[in-house]
Amino acid sequence: MGRASSLIDDLSAAARFGGDGDGVTRYAWSPEQMAVLRWLAEQLEALGLTATLDAAGNVIGRWDAGSGKAVVIGSHLDTVPSGGRYDGALGVLAGLDAIRRLKAEGFEPARPVWLASFMDEEGARFRTALMGSRAFVGEDLTELADRRDPAGVTLRDAMTEAGFAFDRLPEAVAIDSVGAYVELHIEQGRVLESAGAGIGIVTGLAGMFGMRATFRGRADHAGTTPMDDRRDALVGASRAVVALRDHATRHPGLLRMTVGTISVQPGGFNIVPASCEFSIDVRAERGDDLDGARAWITALLEDIAGDEDLELDLRHTHSQPPHDFDDNVIAALRQAADAEGAKTVDMKSGAGHDAMVIGRHAPAAMIFVPSRDGVSHSPAEYTAPEQCELGARVLASAVRNLAQPG
Amino acid sequence: MGRASSLIDDLSAAARFGGDGDGVTRYAWSPEQMAVLRWLAEQLEALGLTATLDAAGNVIGRWDAGSGKAVVIGSHLDTVPSGGRYDGALGVLAGLDAIRRLKAEGFEPARPVWLASFMDEEGARFRTALMGSRAFVGEDLTELADRRDPAGVTLRDAMTEAGFAFDRLPEAVAIDSVGAYVELHIEQGRVLESAGAGIGIVTGLAGMFGMRATFRGRADHAGTTPMDDRRDALVGASRAVVALRDHATRHPGLLRMTVGTISVQPGGFNIVPASCEFSIDVRAERGDDLDGARAWITALLEDIAGDEDLELDLRHTHSQPPHDFDDNVIAALRQAADAEGAKTVDMKSGAGHDAMVIGRHAPAAMIFVPSRDGVSHSPAEYTAPEQCELGARVLASAVRNLAQPG
Repeated sequence: MGRASSLIDDLSAAARFGGDGDGVTRYAWSPEQMAVLRWLAEQLEALGLTATLDAAGNVIGRWDAGSGKAVVIGSHLDTVPSGGRYDGALGVLAGLDAIRRLKAEGFEPARPVWLASFMDEEGARFRTALMGSRAFVGEDLTELADRRDPAGVTLRDAMTEAGFAFDRLPEAVAIDSVGAYVELHIEQGRVLESAGAGIGIVTGLAGMFGMRATFRGRADHAGTTPMDDRRDALVGASRAVVALRDHATRHPGLLRMTVGTISVQPGGFNIVPASCEFSIDVRAERGDDLDGARAWITALLEDIAGDEDLELDLRHTHSQPPHDFDDNVIAALRQAADAEGAKTVDMKSGAGHDAMVIGRHAPAAMIFVPSRDGVSHSPAEYTAPEQCELGARVLASAVRNLAQPG
Repeated sequence: MGRASSLIDDLSAAARFGGDGDGVTRYAWSPEQMAVLRWLAEQLEALGLTATLDAAGNVIGRWDAGSGKAVVIGSHLDTVPSGGRYDGALGVLAGLDAIRRLKAEGFEPARPVWLASFMDEEGARFRTALMGSRAFVGEDLTELADRRDPAGVTLRDAMTEAGFAFDRLPEAVAIDSVGAYVELHIEQGRVLESAGAGIGIVTGLAGMFGMRATFRGRADHAGTTPMDDRRDALVGASRAVVALRDHATRHPGLLRMTVGTISVQPGGFNIVPASCEFSIDVRAERGDDLDGARAWITALLEDIAGDEDLELDLRHTHSQPPHDFDDNVIAALRQAADAEGAKTVDMKSGAGHDAMVIGRHAPAAMIFVPSRDGVSHSPAEYTAPEQCELGARVLASAVRNLAQPG
């Protein structure tokens, strides 16, 4: 087999760690995750890189060359439960393949080139998303120590079990050595597929915030309570779901509003819902749009509460400002994609990635490759072999651009 | 203590069987239910009636007097989980109190007077609502034998455990001996309270049907999927919830539509719902309105499915035609309420009751007494002592009317 199939072989090899038939489950700090990281380290060493597992469980492969700050290719190998084999893994393995290509062609970088596989990007086990890259840039993660997984194990204990020490996380900081960061990820959407494009040039990440809303009315018997004497919490929530969708759809810029969870109490076939709790996920490219959305949603829900005689409890759960990637790194990626003859689309990422964390401290940008039908976080994730290969070639070309002399 | 407080004492005594602090839990065939039935039988025998526990677990107290078919007062002593002390129990104990009053005043009925406490009106354990009265009228209940409670116990085994035999249910048939049936129940609504009335003359029961609808769209990432490229199952369901409420509210006659349960899959904060299942409970006084509602709902959901690019799975789960009570029994109850000086309101019942089952085979009607704030199926159920007493006096007066000579 020639070099062209190594990436696809690596994807298959990695998918066996935590593979459960169709899907892949590799939680942070789990035996499956630690095993795939050891496997990755072996691959890196086989290419002549120095591979280390840092204090945060990040695998860092170092091609020590030239001088100055490193060009870093990064992504992650942890997954959501029963995830696919591309989300995260393709970014790491395409990076590995890019380095393999550069080594094979005798490229001599003018600066160090690193491959980073960050721990726990998904945060699926402890709700500690992006933990590895956050440790890498020096964020204070102290408050995460006592978070528990569904089995009641704390992050601190899980790290100890895996041979790590929570209190040594600060030793993982290495952001000062990073001169440029690039990340390849599956799009997790259908924009590239619809456009027939091979590469998305990701110029920034949308900002986001989350809310959890609860309407409270009154439980009444569905048979005995006249329609005009009800305080139906689900009717209130339903009005909100439709209004949020309609508002976001009509909005001129990128604005996405999603109600992904909903539950009613008491939840009986013949009982008017007394309370209804639902989540609201909001994404926008511009901070102004996020602020506007926040105010609009608050007013909307208060209006509905008034109309329907409901009480409203509205909590903000999290927020993240928009982030623009570095122009020079974007240019290097664009030039690389052009050099490989890829049809590209400029886009913003609606999802969070390690590149967002790194990008707050060092020049960074990303490329996307197509996801078939936009599917991700599912065993049905798929990116065609030639699309994976193109992504790896673009990464290699970008490293050539970023790590060249001068 | 005089006779006037016996009913309230009885309500307290009954609530101790299965009492759990605030609420009362007496499932069909449970030790608590069997104990309260034995207690009831003792009270009936103390009044000189013959009390038997029939093959369906119904307690029948017989005041053998006069000749011909019996005047029967009935209701139930089983409850929903953590129910109140009035739903069902007040009907049985007000009937007991009515007989106590008639005995005390030396009334000599021209025909037998019975008190019936039907087994499992609520159906909370095996989803076998109205089982006792259905056995009493001779319905074929064979298909219920293998229904399981949440612990996996079948109805057949639960009956055996309680000392009964499922296959002997046909022995409970006694409807041919019933000349008139009256039942007192709490209103489970706020109509009487709003009107300041003490007695509701229930002239019939609304018909009803149930549906279970599922919209299926596509799970997408909330951050990466444009608003106009979504097939959001919850948006479809939400449009339906609001439209159903609005339609029923505008409808000129009594029409009630309730979505009491809803769930989404996969149910992630940042995932567009791929499917949404919800129930629809519909009540109307007239069969035509039920038929119209069925057609309207089907068209509505199909329209929404088309608009939102969703698949629709719509199942009918149950239905019950409207039932008009017997004019003569209604007249006897109205005359009794007038004789007791009660302010009355004529109304339809939106909920099902044993009187509906009996009423298909023998002349029957009901009275309601007020439920504070309309609350039922809750420890907060409450009907004031004087309202309970008035109900018992009306029952006694109605029996005088129905069981008098001539």
